[in-house]
Amino acid sequence: MERNLTLLTDLYELTMMQGYFINQNNNRRVIFEVFFRKNPFGNGYSIACGLQQAIDYINNLSFSEGDISYLKSTGLFRDDFLKHLSEFRFTGDIYAVPEGTVVFPREPLVKIIAPIDQAQLMESALLNIINHQSLIATKAARVVYAAGKAPVMEFGLRRAQGPDAGIYGARAAVIAGCSGTSNVLAGKMFNIPTLGTHAHSWIMSFPTEYEAFKAYADLYPDSCTLLVDTYDTLHSGVPNAIKVFREMKDKGHTLTNYGIRLDSGDLAYLTKKARAMLDEAGFTDAVISASGDLDEYLIQSLYAQDAPIGAWGIGTKMITASDQPSFGGVYKIAAIERPEGGFEPKIKISENSAKITNPGDKKTLRVYDKEGKVFADLIALFDEEYDESRPLELFSPVDTWKSTTLDPGSYRLRSLLVPIFKDGKCIYESPSTFEIRDYCKKEMDTLWDESKRLVNPHDVYIDLSHPLFEMKQELLRAHRESIKK
Amino acid sequence: MERNLTLLTDLYELTMMQGYFINQNNNRRVIFEVFFRKNPFGNGYSIACGLQQAIDYINNLSFSEGDISYLKSTGLFRDDFLKHLSEFRFTGDIYAVPEGTVVFPREPLVKIIAPIDQAQLMESALLNIINHQSLIATKAARVVYAAGKAPVMEFGLRRAQGPDAGIYGARAAVIAGCSGTSNVLAGKMFNIPTLGTHAHSWIMSFPTEYEAFKAYADLYPDSCTLLVDTYDTLHSGVPNAIKVFREMKDKGHTLTNYGIRLDSGDLAYLTKKARAMLDEAGFTDAVISASGDLDEYLIQSLYAQDAPIGAWGIGTKMITASDQPSFGGVYKIAAIERPEGGFEPKIKISENSAKITNPGDKKTLRVYDKEGKVFADLIALFDEEYDESRPLELFSPVDTWKSTTLDPGSYRLRSLLVPIFKDGKCIYESPSTFEIRDYCKKEMDTLWDESKRLVNPHDVYIDLSHPLFEMKQELLRAHRESIKK
Repeated sequence: MERNLTLLTDLYELTMMQGYFINQNNNRRVIFEVFFRKNPFGNGYSIACGLQQAIDYINNLSFSEGDISYLKSTGLFRDDFLKHLSEFRFTGDIYAVPEGTVVFPREPLVKIIAPIDQAQLMESALLNIINHQSLIATKAARVVYAAGKAPVMEFGLRRAQGPDAGIYGARAAVIAGCSGTSNVLAGKMFNIPTLGTHAHSWIMSFPTEYEAFKAYADLYPDSCTLLVDTYDTLHSGVPNAIKVFREMKDKGHTLTNYGIRLDSGDLAYLTKKARAMLDEAGFTDAVISASGDLDEYLIQSLYAQDAPIGAWGIGTKMITASDQPSFGGVYKIAAIERPEGGFEPKIKISENSAKITNPGDKKTLRVYDKEGKVFADLIALFDEEYDESRPLELFSPVDTWKSTTLDPGSYRLRSLLVPIFKDGKCIYESPSTFEIRDYCKKEMDTLWDESKRLVNPHDVYIDLSHPLFEMKQELLRAHRESIKK
Repeated sequence: MERNLTLLTDLYELTMMQGYFINQNNNRRVIFEVFFRKNPFGNGYSIACGLQQAIDYINNLSFSEGDISYLKSTGLFRDDFLKHLSEFRFTGDIYAVPEGTVVFPREPLVKIIAPIDQAQLMESALLNIINHQSLIATKAARVVYAAGKAPVMEFGLRRAQGPDAGIYGARAAVIAGCSGTSNVLAGKMFNIPTLGTHAHSWIMSFPTEYEAFKAYADLYPDSCTLLVDTYDTLHSGVPNAIKVFREMKDKGHTLTNYGIRLDSGDLAYLTKKARAMLDEAGFTDAVISASGDLDEYLIQSLYAQDAPIGAWGIGTKMITASDQPSFGGVYKIAAIERPEGGFEPKIKISENSAKITNPGDKKTLRVYDKEGKVFADLIALFDEEYDESRPLELFSPVDTWKSTTLDPGSYRLRSLLVPIFKDGKCIYESPSTFEIRDYCKKEMDTLWDESKRLVNPHDVYIDLSHPLFEMKQELLRAHRESIKK
C-alpha cells in the first residue's frame, strides 16, 4: 500500500518552488510549523495523530518520470526546473509531537527546518494527513470518554470520505481508544482487532429470523452477537435470540462472548425491555450492543436514561467527525535563515488577532503539577533553557497581568517535540498502533476530568515565554511602523 | 495508483460469506441496490458520482496471498473457505446510473445481481466510494450554482479527510462544475485543470510585499493573481498590486489573465474598496478572487451585498461537505433467487416507515415534460413496459389519492440504469472526467430553478409504479400476518 504521493500538493507550491529556483533562493532554509488555532467540537484538548503516515509520505518523496512529464504538459514549468525536481529529495530536519499526545491550540505539532522549496512542497500533504487523523482521533477520544467502561467499535467505513478516510480514520479511532474496527484492510495494515457479526441481509436471506440466528450461532458459537431489529425487535428479534441462546445452552455450550445488537428504534426503551427479557430468561451476562447514527452526546444521553448498553458500534458521526469535519491545522512560516547565518523570526499579521502567528524557532514545554496532571503548556523559543530547580513564572499572553509562579518541586517539565528527521534521514521509529493507543490512554490520564467534559470544558492554559512574547511584540511594533511609512 | 482494495470491507461481510459458504448457499443469486433516503444539505436533488472508481475496485477484486494469510491469522476462518476466497472473482451483473446524473431519494444508483457472497463482499467499499463522491459532487453543484457565472476553483486538499478525499473529492467537484482544482495529483490522474498562484509564505519570504509581487509577476506574467492580504489589504496589498500591474503595463505587457486574491477579512467591504482602487487605476478587467472558509450560503450573501467577486476558491467546506459530511447511501437486498428460478422480492421492515425498502428487481424511469425538464421519476419493476404513445398515470406512494395522468406527446421517458458488468465482465466505458462534467451540466439544465434553490427547494415527485406499489403492500400485509402468528 506504499503510494508515492509526491504530486499530492497544491499547484501553487510548485509555482512558488519554481519561483524560488529561478530566483536562486530555493536553498535558503526556513522554519515552517504545523499548528491549529482552536480545538474542534468545542473540546478541551486535541490528540495529535498521523505522524507515521507523514513520515511515509516524506520518505517516498520523489518525482517519477511520469510526474515530470505530466508537469511539463501543463506548460507552466521550465525544463531546468523540471530537471531540478527530478533530482528532488528531502534534506531537512523535522521535529514533531509523538502521535497520541494531548495537544492544545497554537503549539507546533510538526516543525520543518529545510530549504524553502522542500518545505513548501510538503505543505498540502502534511496538513492533509495530520489534519485528518488528528480530527478523527480527537473525535474518537470524546466518544470513548462518553462510553466509559463500555468498548467502542469503529464501524464507519461505508460512510467515510473515500478509502483512505476509512483506513486511516480507523487507525486514528483505535489510537484514541476504540477497541477495534470493522475495517478489515485497516486491521491488516495496522495490526488492530477487527470486529463484526452479521447484517440485516443475513437475516433476510433465510426463510425466518430464527433460522438465520440458529445458523449464525452454529457457525460462530464463541462470538455470537445476534442483530435483533430486522423485523420487530421485541416481538420477534429478542424472543428468537433467547430461543437460540437456550438451545446453545441445552446443547452444553458455555455461552461466554454473546449478546444482541440493536441498530434502530428508540435505544433507551428497546434496550431496557430487551435487558428485562434476557435477564428473565437467565441470560444476565448477554451483552447488549447498540449502533446506528450514534455519537458522544447520544451515548451520554442514553446513559443518563439508564440504557443498559454494554458495547457501542459508532460509524458515520465518528468517522466523518460530523459536527466539525475538519481540523483546521495550518502551515506557517516562523523564521527564515539570514544570508549571514542564524534565523530571522517572521510573523504573519492579520486583522483578526487570533490569526497572528507566533514567530521564531520554538518548542513546547508541558508543565505538570505534583499529581502529574497538566497544569499549563509553555510555548518558548527553542534555545531557552529551563531548570526545574528554579521557580517557574507563567503569565497569560492575552491578559498579561494574570501571572503565577510555581515553586521548585511543585512542577515538572517535559519538552513535547522530538526529532523525526535529521539531514533528510528519518531517525524516529514509530511505535505500533497499539503502543500509541496505550500512550494516548496515559496522555488522557494527565488531563483533569474538567478538561474532558464534552460541553464547555475547562481550558488548559497555553502561555508564551517572556522572550517569545517580547519577540512577538517587537515584530508587531515594527510592522506598525512600516505601515505608517 | 491502482490499488487492490479487496480487504476494504467490513469484517461481517467476510463472516457472512463464510456462513453462506458453509451452508452451501453462497451461489444463490440476489439483487442488492445502492440507494439513499434523503438528499443531503436539504437539497432538491443529488448528483450520482464515483462509478468509475467503483468499477476499478470491482475489476481489481482478488485476494492476494498476503490477504489470505492475514485472514487466517485472525482465527475466524476455515481453510476450505480461505481456499474458496483465494479463487474469488466477480461473476455477476451490475447496472448503474451514469456519473453526473441528477438523482433523487429511493432510486437505485447501483444494482448488483450476483451470487450472494460476491454481492455481500462489495457492500462496504461500494458504499464508501459512491457515498463519498456523490456527497462532494452534490455539495459542489450547490456551490457552483451559487457562484453563477464566476468560476469556482476547488482548493480543499489540506483539509480533506485523507489523501483519497482530496483526490476523489477534487474529481467529484470538477464533475459538478468546478473549473479546476489546486490538487496536482488529481490533475494528473483525471486530466483536469490545476489552478493556483502563491501563498502568504511567498510574500513573507521576500523583504517586502512589493518585491514579492514583482518577482511573481516577472515569473508568471500571463496568470498573475496576487494575494493581497498578508499584511494589510487596503493599505499595502492592493496599492502594491496596482504598482506592479502598472509596471507590467509600462513594460508593454498586455495584461489579460490577472487580478488579486483575498483570503481573509470582510470580503464584501474589502472587495468593494479594492474594486474601486483597481478601477480608478484603470485596471477594470482585473479579476478579484476570494477564498477563505467560503460556502454556497456565503457566496449568495456576498453577492446580495454586491461584492464584486469574479472567481471563487472554495476549500474546507466543499471538500468535506461540512454541513453534512456523509451521504447516507445504503445497500439493501431487494430480491433473492428462488431454488426453482426467478427472483423472490424481499422487503426490509422498520418501525420508521421511511426506512422500509422497495422490494423487487427495479428500474427508474425519468419523466420529462415538453420543455425537457424533469417532471417526475417513476420507480418501476424491471420487466414493466412503458410506451410514450400511451397516457402515463402517476400517483404519490404516500398520498395515494394524489394522481395525475400525462397525455401522449406531453412527456418523454428515459430509463436511468445502464448495464455496467455482464457475467463479471465490465461492458461499460467510462467517459472522461470532462465529458462527465459536460453531461452533468446538461443534467442540471433539466431541473427547474425551483429545485435548485439552496434553501427549501421544490421536491421533484418520486413515484412508484402500480405493480411495484402493489408488491410492496402485499409484502407488508404478509409481514403483519407473520408477526401476528
